[in-house]
Amino acid sequence: MSGNTIGKLFTVTSFGESHGPALGCIVDGCPPGLALSEADLQHDLDRRRPGQSRHTTQRRESDTVKILSGVFEGRTTGTPIGLLIENEDQRSKDYASIADRFRPGHADYTYHMKYGFRDYRGGGRSSARETAMRVAAGGIAKKYLRERLGIEIRGYLAQLGPIRLDPLDWRAIDHNPFFCPDPAKVPQLEAYMDALRKEGDSVGARVNVVAKGVPPGLGEPIFDRLDAELAYALMSINAVKGVEIGAGFACIEAKGSVFRDEMSPEGFLGNSAGGILGGISSGQDIVASIALKPTSSLRIPGRSVNLQGEPVEVITTGRHDPCVGIRATPIAEAMMAIVLMDHYLRHRGQNQDVVRTLDPLPPSAL
Amino acid sequence: MSGNTIGKLFTVTSFGESHGPALGCIVDGCPPGLALSEADLQHDLDRRRPGQSRHTTQRRESDTVKILSGVFEGRTTGTPIGLLIENEDQRSKDYASIADRFRPGHADYTYHMKYGFRDYRGGGRSSARETAMRVAAGGIAKKYLRERLGIEIRGYLAQLGPIRLDPLDWRAIDHNPFFCPDPAKVPQLEAYMDALRKEGDSVGARVNVVAKGVPPGLGEPIFDRLDAELAYALMSINAVKGVEIGAGFACIEAKGSVFRDEMSPEGFLGNSAGGILGGISSGQDIVASIALKPTSSLRIPGRSVNLQGEPVEVITTGRHDPCVGIRATPIAEAMMAIVLMDHYLRHRGQNQDVVRTLDPLPPSAL
Amino acid sequence: MSGNTIGKLFTVTSFGESHGPALGCIVDGCPPGLALSEADLQHDLDRRRPGQSRHTTQRRESDTVKILSGVFEGRTTGTPIGLLIENEDQRSKDYASIADRFRPGHADYTYHMKYGFRDYRGGGRSSARETAMRVAAGGIAKKYLRERLGIEIRGYLAQLGPIRLDPLDWRAIDHNPFFCPDPAKVPQLEAYMDALRKEGDSVGARVNVVAKGVPPGLGEPIFDRLDAELAYALMSINAVKGVEIGAGFACIEAKGSVFRDEMSPEGFLGNSAGGILGGISSGQDIVASIALKPTSSLRIPGRSVNLQGEPVEVITTGRHDPCVGIRATPIAEAMMAIVLMDHYLRHRGQNQDVVRTLDPLPPSAL
Amino acid sequence: MSGNTIGKLFTVTSFGESHGPALGCIVDGCPPGLALSEADLQHDLDRRRPGQSRHTTQRRESDTVKILSGVFEGRTTGTPIGLLIENEDQRSKDYASIADRFRPGHADYTYHMKYGFRDYRGGGRSSARETAMRVAAGGIAKKYLRERLGIEIRGYLAQLGPIRLDPLDWRAIDHNPFFCPDPAKVPQLEAYMDALRKEGDSVGARVNVVAKGVPPGLGEPIFDRLDAELAYALMSINAVKGVEIGAGFACIEAKGSVFRDEMSPEGFLGNSAGGILGGISSGQDIVASIALKPTSSLRIPGRSVNLQGEPVEVITTGRHDPCVGIRATPIAEAMMAIVLMDHYLRHRGQNQDVVRTLDPLPPSAL
Repeated sequence: MSGNTIGKLFTVTSFGESHGPALGCIVDGCPPGLALSEADLQHDLDRRRPGQSRHTTQRRESDTVKILSGVFEGRTTGTPIGLLIENEDQRSKDYASIADRFRPGHADYTYHMKYGFRDYRGGGRSSARETAMRVAAGGIAKKYLRERLGIEIRGYLAQLGPIRLDPLDWRAIDHNPFFCPDPAKVPQLEAYMDALRKEGDSVGARVNVVAKGVPPGLGEPIFDRLDAELAYALMSINAVKGVEIGAGFACIEAKGSVFRDEMSPEGFLGNSAGGILGGISSGQDIVASIALKPTSSLRIPGRSVNLQGEPVEVITTGRHDPCVGIRATPIAEAMMAIVLMDHYLRHRGQNQDVVRTLDPLPPSAL
Repeated sequence: MSGNTIGKLFTVTSFGESHGPALGCIVDGCPPGLALSEADLQHDLDRRRPGQSRHTTQRRESDTVKILSGVFEGRTTGTPIGLLIENEDQRSKDYASIADRFRPGHADYTYHMKYGFRDYRGGGRSSARETAMRVAAGGIAKKYLRERLGIEIRGYLAQLGPIRLDPLDWRAIDHNPFFCPDPAKVPQLEAYMDALRKEGDSVGARVNVVAKGVPPGLGEPIFDRLDAELAYALMSINAVKGVEIGAGFACIEAKGSVFRDEMSPEGFLGNSAGGILGGISSGQDIVASIALKPTSSLRIPGRSVNLQGEPVEVITTGRHDPCVGIRATPIAEAMMAIVLMDHYLRHRGQNQDVVRTLDPLPPSAL
Repeated sequence: MSGNTIGKLFTVTSFGESHGPALGCIVDGCPPGLALSEADLQHDLDRRRPGQSRHTTQRRESDTVKILSGVFEGRTTGTPIGLLIENEDQRSKDYASIADRFRPGHADYTYHMKYGFRDYRGGGRSSARETAMRVAAGGIAKKYLRERLGIEIRGYLAQLGPIRLDPLDWRAIDHNPFFCPDPAKVPQLEAYMDALRKEGDSVGARVNVVAKGVPPGLGEPIFDRLDAELAYALMSINAVKGVEIGAGFACIEAKGSVFRDEMSPEGFLGNSAGGILGGISSGQDIVASIALKPTSSLRIPGRSVNLQGEPVEVITTGRHDPCVGIRATPIAEAMMAIVLMDHYLRHRGQNQDVVRTLDPLPPSAL
Repeated sequence: MSGNTIGKLFTVTSFGESHGPALGCIVDGCPPGLALSEADLQHDLDRRRPGQSRHTTQRRESDTVKILSGVFEGRTTGTPIGLLIENEDQRSKDYASIADRFRPGHADYTYHMKYGFRDYRGGGRSSARETAMRVAAGGIAKKYLRERLGIEIRGYLAQLGPIRLDPLDWRAIDHNPFFCPDPAKVPQLEAYMDALRKEGDSVGARVNVVAKGVPPGLGEPIFDRLDAELAYALMSINAVKGVEIGAGFACIEAKGSVFRDEMSPEGFLGNSAGGILGGISSGQDIVASIALKPTSSLRIPGRSVNLQGEPVEVITTGRHDPCVGIRATPIAEAMMAIVLMDHYLRHRGQNQDVVRTLDPLPPSAL
């Protein structure tokens, strides 16, 4: 199967370029009988939508999603769900200047080397605009997981450049333009972003995603482990350079006697593992963290080469996000939802026969 | 497809438990005409093999691999290659004590919850013993990539607990029991491991893997990006809790003007991206780093529950690795080789028509 | 992967219902650089289109296809190609009468039992309307195969009810409403169809498809044989109940000494095998034949049950094809094209290294 | 995924050549808790085994299967099941004579053209010897389907050359060397086969397979229809040239008013569809029929070419089946079992939520 499909039973296949007529995807394998309308998907699309504040790209898109199939009389039918978002604000002229040269840090060069030429308008297929369809498709998974299994998936901005954002107040996240869980730090973030925009520079970020209420048993060792598939799905998001599960890289300096999450009848006594043991969910919170690199689209001139391999200078005057991490939160939630949905269907397909001798332990005894 | 196959065109499907009669795998999709014998695979198997020093598990296995098909008159035929390693040292009595209880930090509990019961002998399918087949299969990919494309894949131990191992001397790696690239630090590692063994505790580690000579163009956006598939393959290794590509999490605090790898006719002016842009190889070194948690098998008692959910204590008297990261280097190399091999075949399948207007840039101008 | 995707490297994923707003598909894996426009796909869509003569359904659809992505400056980019056809003539009232009952011989009952309810408008997803997207997607494969490899794929109506259509005159096929290769029999077909329509009954048909110019080597034994994948693709067409490769069922009474296709330096001395040996193309014509059942939508009353399991009578007054086989020719061509395209890409992915000691034999010495 | 894996959730991946050390396969996705031992699989292997009568090849193989993983304390664990059969009777000298030439009607030429060279010993991978693993793997599916769902899958020889075998007496099938359902015709079959062997010629056959007790709802339109996947699986069996579902090619001359299977509260009033409507099982018997060509290995000389493309004569003095159809019955049963098993798991994975308003109709009212 080619590279634009994710999932085995719950599959999402995507198409569309930044400046083409439309973006779309097909969600195949959604169970029948789920109440679904465009409104159910629009909320997360609006959370991801550009131009929500002065801190993100000013490209204007309503990102209005249309459901073209797979829903009848308000419920999913079990047949493939076609989703479409038309592009509205396509200022291609912005991009003529980079038609003949490769923007450093972008996929211009690699697309050219792979395919022989490229759609240079706004990065074409490699544009983060594509993530709108991930959010739309993920919205279907999120709704199913929430309504049928009580699974809640939520993310937040954990760090922006040097600014670490804690403590974690879940209620604050959707009430500021940064998905920041620490309302006291919002003014600091705004000041930092304003300065960054003046410099014409950009910065990286960390986004955390947590799934609560995941039953034990999801994940297919030894390759399609739940953590391995999460790493795949999260690393596939534009600009992501690192993925951690649970304590992640902090495990390197940890002792096993401390790191291993002991168990008691009252529940687990820790969650260093991030809710996954041996590639299978344990019933604890699934915790993942991703690092997003600073965007490479800058007003600051960058050295590069053109189609003839000659040295050139590249300046991005077009609209861009000085910190792509800000809008990444709903995207990361969507990817986690798609993976959990797929693994839930795969698990019940193979293991519906299972008779357990033990009730799941409580997620935590703490 | 179920969870024990990796790859799309170059596929590896694996079976086998820690204490079953044998481990095996099927490598399907290897191009015909590659000179191949058991000896080609045994070298990496020996690098991974337990009992090579006092710092790893003392389980005695020769890990002798047999090629059962797919090779005729010393060359691969293009048909599936069946590989088999018989288990020799199966001291199941070691494990009877944990048949009725879950070792904390292991997959015992999750396998039980997923499948209803489990093969408790040495962790059954969840044992790192399974990684022997990854190394055998990866050996085929490594040989093809080296001989046909000049791609070299090598890994090393970058950190053991608190001890960071640098500078990097590639020649040193295979001349000490730790895959340590800094020979001066070997005595320090030995002292640390001896103390750790006395405590009955364990510690985590970091392993880096680098592929040199990878042509530009490998990777299938937007989901099957090369970095996404590497994250999947590396995270699927037992005990891995984090994956980084290039600068990884260091990108969070970086400015775009510094992080983006500028280009010149003489080559790239940096490799923060780790050789992958937009999910496609750039021709630079592919650089990945993984974090391995400390093993949870300890002589130090751990709190847990039994099959009835009652509180119990678990002590591991069996053989184990105080730092599983030590033996992880050849495994990480194998997983990277499998992913690169698969993506090379996928790429040439779709893109053999491509006529390029530009020769690849040199990997580095520095 | 769920059931609405076909192919491994060249994949087609489809959505859409008979009376939804639109049908669509995503073609992923098309090599870059292929000149492509909507006009290239419209020709075959028009051949399949209903209402071309009084012998097919009178539903009026222009079946105008839109390319939404994957093509830039007139050439494919190597990224997924989104295709869309909007439904125009949706006379849902036709179908209200069967909302509560199952049309015998249709998928109404099985969709209801599988999914719990169904989109009853014109059969919803099970309608042959869905085949429009197969023809659109197949058109891309046909163009690539023709322009890059010189492969021509053509089909024809070989039998309609009792009327066998031979001899075969390729030039005649597109000059009558039946894809009939024997112009002399067209009046007989018209008379038969007129009588059938008066009866309110329907009849079956046989369609043959032939691919000329296929190079030897396509097909992936032992399961993904070329003939096995053709059987899968052709049997997936609505109403198909049988698939033959080459001589097909005639092989039962044949002797091996006659049936085996002997070879000479001048070429093969027969083609009983239909161009496939051991699941791999031989370089001869690929020959397949399919049987299409008579449509079950009749004015003649049929016994059935309703949603409560009570006996009811079903009469189809809506528009339908008295012989669905008539319009099946371009669909069968499209499915063969998709399979050959996918196998061509898979083959060159795995076997580009092959150095042959022998030039392909001529397809035929006769 | 390469060509040696079948299935999506219940997958079988196979390896092995006719004259290699062993054949093997990996069955991944089998639900846990199924009682399983080698003895469960040996019965069907013995039914397929050569040398059971003078009418099949005299190659002597015990075809003893070993279970190498995935079973613990007599039950499947849910992890992959490794199966192995060692080759015993490898008389390679038989085949030296054809090392430099292509046997007409065999895969020698196409394997050579695809892969550049081939394992010529007994056809290597293209040998029907490979089907032993299909029978072993299918035995696991048959046992699960029978014990958990009450599905019985049985096949029989329906025609041998000109001799049609009816009426159908299920009890007779396993009491003669032909899987003949009409005991009265066994002497006629023996006489025919004796004459054929004297001629040194071979003949084709028809095998029918029926699954009883299949619940409605299995099959994943629009491509992975149950009939499409059955066609794929059955056409992948060596020597198969045609596949029919239900009435198959007889539908061509049928009228819709007769062919459509009407329904009543007492059940279906016919089964022309062979138990599949719209690609989904209806609850009636699943009925498939396959045509197997006569083997091309004959004592009668055949014209061919050698590796240099020069004309040569080929005579097969080695052991062979004058009618490969005779031993095909258990193979066809196994392939149907694998497909039904996979679709059962896929269906319950996606559709476990379904609440039906109607009990399944009885399979037949007749």
